[in-house]
Amino acid sequence: MELQWTKIFLPEIKELIETKDFKGLRDFLRERHPADIVDILRELDPTERVMGFRLLDKNKISEVFALFEPIEQEELLKQFTEQHAKEILTEMQPDDRTQLFDELPAHVVERLLKLLPPLERKEANELLNYPHNSAGRIMTPEYVGLQMDMTVAKALEHIRKTGLNRETIYICYIVDETKKLRGVTSLKNIILANPDQLIKDITNEDVIYVHTTDDQEKAVRVVQKYDILAVPVVDNEDRLVGIVTVDDVLDVVQEEVTEDFQKMAGIQTTEEEYFRIVFSKRILNRVTWLVVLVIAATISQTILKRYSGVLSSMIALAYFIPMLTGSGGNTGSQSSTLIIRALATGEVKSKEWWRILSREVKVGISLGLIMGLIAFAIAAISLKEFTVAITVGISLCTVVSVGNIVGLAIPLFFRFIKLDPAFVSAPLIATLLDATGLVIYFEIASRILTPASIP
Amino acid sequence: MELQWTKIFLPEIKELIETKDFKGLRDFLRERHPADIVDILRELDPTERVMGFRLLDKNKISEVFALFEPIEQEELLKQFTEQHAKEILTEMQPDDRTQLFDELPAHVVERLLKLLPPLERKEANELLNYPHNSAGRIMTPEYVGLQMDMTVAKALEHIRKTGLNRETIYICYIVDETKKLRGVTSLKNIILANPDQLIKDITNEDVIYVHTTDDQEKAVRVVQKYDILAVPVVDNEDRLVGIVTVDDVLDVVQEEVTEDFQKMAGIQTTEEEYFRIVFSKRILNRVTWLVVLVIAATISQTILKRYSGVLSSMIALAYFIPMLTGSGGNTGSQSSTLIIRALATGEVKSKEWWRILSREVKVGISLGLIMGLIAFAIAAISLKEFTVAITVGISLCTVVSVGNIVGLAIPLFFRFIKLDPAFVSAPLIATLLDATGLVIYFEIASRILTPASIP
Repeated sequence: MELQWTKIFLPEIKELIETKDFKGLRDFLRERHPADIVDILRELDPTERVMGFRLLDKNKISEVFALFEPIEQEELLKQFTEQHAKEILTEMQPDDRTQLFDELPAHVVERLLKLLPPLERKEANELLNYPHNSAGRIMTPEYVGLQMDMTVAKALEHIRKTGLNRETIYICYIVDETKKLRGVTSLKNIILANPDQLIKDITNEDVIYVHTTDDQEKAVRVVQKYDILAVPVVDNEDRLVGIVTVDDVLDVVQEEVTEDFQKMAGIQTTEEEYFRIVFSKRILNRVTWLVVLVIAATISQTILKRYSGVLSSMIALAYFIPMLTGSGGNTGSQSSTLIIRALATGEVKSKEWWRILSREVKVGISLGLIMGLIAFAIAAISLKEFTVAITVGISLCTVVSVGNIVGLAIPLFFRFIKLDPAFVSAPLIATLLDATGLVIYFEIASRILTPASIP
Repeated sequence: MELQWTKIFLPEIKELIETKDFKGLRDFLRERHPADIVDILRELDPTERVMGFRLLDKNKISEVFALFEPIEQEELLKQFTEQHAKEILTEMQPDDRTQLFDELPAHVVERLLKLLPPLERKEANELLNYPHNSAGRIMTPEYVGLQMDMTVAKALEHIRKTGLNRETIYICYIVDETKKLRGVTSLKNIILANPDQLIKDITNEDVIYVHTTDDQEKAVRVVQKYDILAVPVVDNEDRLVGIVTVDDVLDVVQEEVTEDFQKMAGIQTTEEEYFRIVFSKRILNRVTWLVVLVIAATISQTILKRYSGVLSSMIALAYFIPMLTGSGGNTGSQSSTLIIRALATGEVKSKEWWRILSREVKVGISLGLIMGLIAFAIAAISLKEFTVAITVGISLCTVVSVGNIVGLAIPLFFRFIKLDPAFVSAPLIATLLDATGLVIYFEIASRILTPASIP
């Protein structure tokens, strides 16, 4: 089967619905993967969608439900009967449930928690108590736990008995009687071992873990670095309380990358998909930074007003303002992007700032020289005015060198004071560099353009 | 064990090397995870590093080697003896080997291929024949293949016999006698099934696959969408030739995201880590776009020259040029980032352009009105010149609305003509909008500022 066949099947499904062929629809859905069922249900209108849910196999319902976005899940819950909602919520994987509750208003969560049986309610409450974006918040408590002195045969029997509901059975954790994490092994080790060997003999005691309160990014880094299918999460007393699996890690990576992109473009971050954002939020997410930047741009205006004498005595200086401010901004957004991404992937640490700076000073000056020469040539040809051309050339060289360092320094500084470097948006750097560039430009101009050279 | 402890152990390692305590070093390295050994070796100087390699356990060497960047691997291979290089290359996983060969010059690959035993050489050659960035290029041919009519017990026996060298044994593929892909099952299904059940009974025949020539991103999408540990790769005759596993998918995601970030900032993409890029390449990667944009900025210069009459009769107009061009660029880079990311994650398809446009026109006008009003107020207060203030306000409103649509339209157009939308860098959009914004500004100015209103 190939990807994205939903559209091909849609007419068939619509017809099944129109002819009220519920048996046909049920058979059709039975053979589909939950992720594809979500695609199909999304194309239907709300009442058809609820009907579609009723036709799903019992064991598939909660899996399909979990794949919707929280905002859609909320919509669906409103349309389900209380009994139906209760069944789905109880059946959901604990980590999927936390993700849903995370996004709902407190009073709705309160009401939904009451629907859960005592055990699931306790579990959900515990997970919701971990901080936002922490490893505890995205973990699932459903792991396979083994003991050191079990035989391999006994362990396999244990996995067979309890494995069905576990998020993964491929990575097994060894805990002692106080639930402390002692080691890790894999189903591969177990399968390849002799049945009467002890689990102890195939256990790696050097197990890599994260704490419940660690940032979720740390769990991501561990999974990526060690190429493992899951990372164990322990509490303050080193007791194993859950695991974060690789599929959750992939989701977190995508989410955080989208957030970084948005921050860097000066947009307030949102986890909702593009088409699922309402109009007012669309405006709100974007207007804050734009307004801040318009106001910040009054600095440029004040500077230009201050130099209006030089400007009006040589109006040609104005022609090169966009080229100058643009080049500064472009260089700054290049260097800030490079450093923000390198910090995000962990390739670079903020304490290496000296090494970075010493490299980039040279890069900036080289770029400045190349671009300054080109700008000089352009100005000389188009104006046939040597003094203005030399002013433009020197200014552009300086602005590009400075812009390169400013683009680097601000994200590094943000990381240093424990703020997210991605908040340093390219627009912010460009606006700051506009003002800096103008001062450099007019200071150089007023020195080079003696009254004699002004026609 | 916690992440990033390398620095803590480094003094201990340095001492072991200095006192030539090779036994101690060997014991120390034996207990470390390959990913940590890489961290340690990276901190050592080249001769120490080669010595470190010699002390590694046989079965760990190729795994550790594979975790280095291709550029470092090339360096290491130069320092190894031919016999040592041969052993490592032969032991490497086929997909890791392709990744290394991918980055080396053709004549080096030629030489290294000759070191491989016939079977491995044939395999390596086949993998290198798939297009760059294709699923075939990142797959490994080492999967577990089963037959429909095997019993579960027989299948388990087969896995035990062949599993040790397989990239994953958790997902098993069912093939017929012509190697055609017929279905998929998991070790979980096998473990939970009855030993005398047939594989047929626990097989999902609706298996999702990609083709060898599909873009690697398609493999990534499939793994993400269906939350699976591996995706099978088939050739033109639907024969199973390899699999792409989730850890490779994670690497591809990080790589492609870094590329997108770089493209969007107008930087030529590179897969090398930040500190591993040489100076000349650092300049080259960045200068191309910067120079293109400086030259493109001559459009702005020409426009300003053309309107120099209006400008010199009302020099105050110049004060607002940075605010105006800046706001256009900022809005454009917001909307282009939103759409590029939504296209990259598949949230939005380019054929939905009409739906996107109709939403964003409203957003753009709203943003324009808000920012135009603010700009009007700023200009009115600072200049006490109503006509200039109204010119600034109207222009800003128009530039923001236009900028929002341009930022959207260009990436959509790029996708439409099958180019990567991420190539539409924020700097490119900003430079285009500089020129557009200036024309709008001076056209409005020359209409509003009648000679009478000019003092």
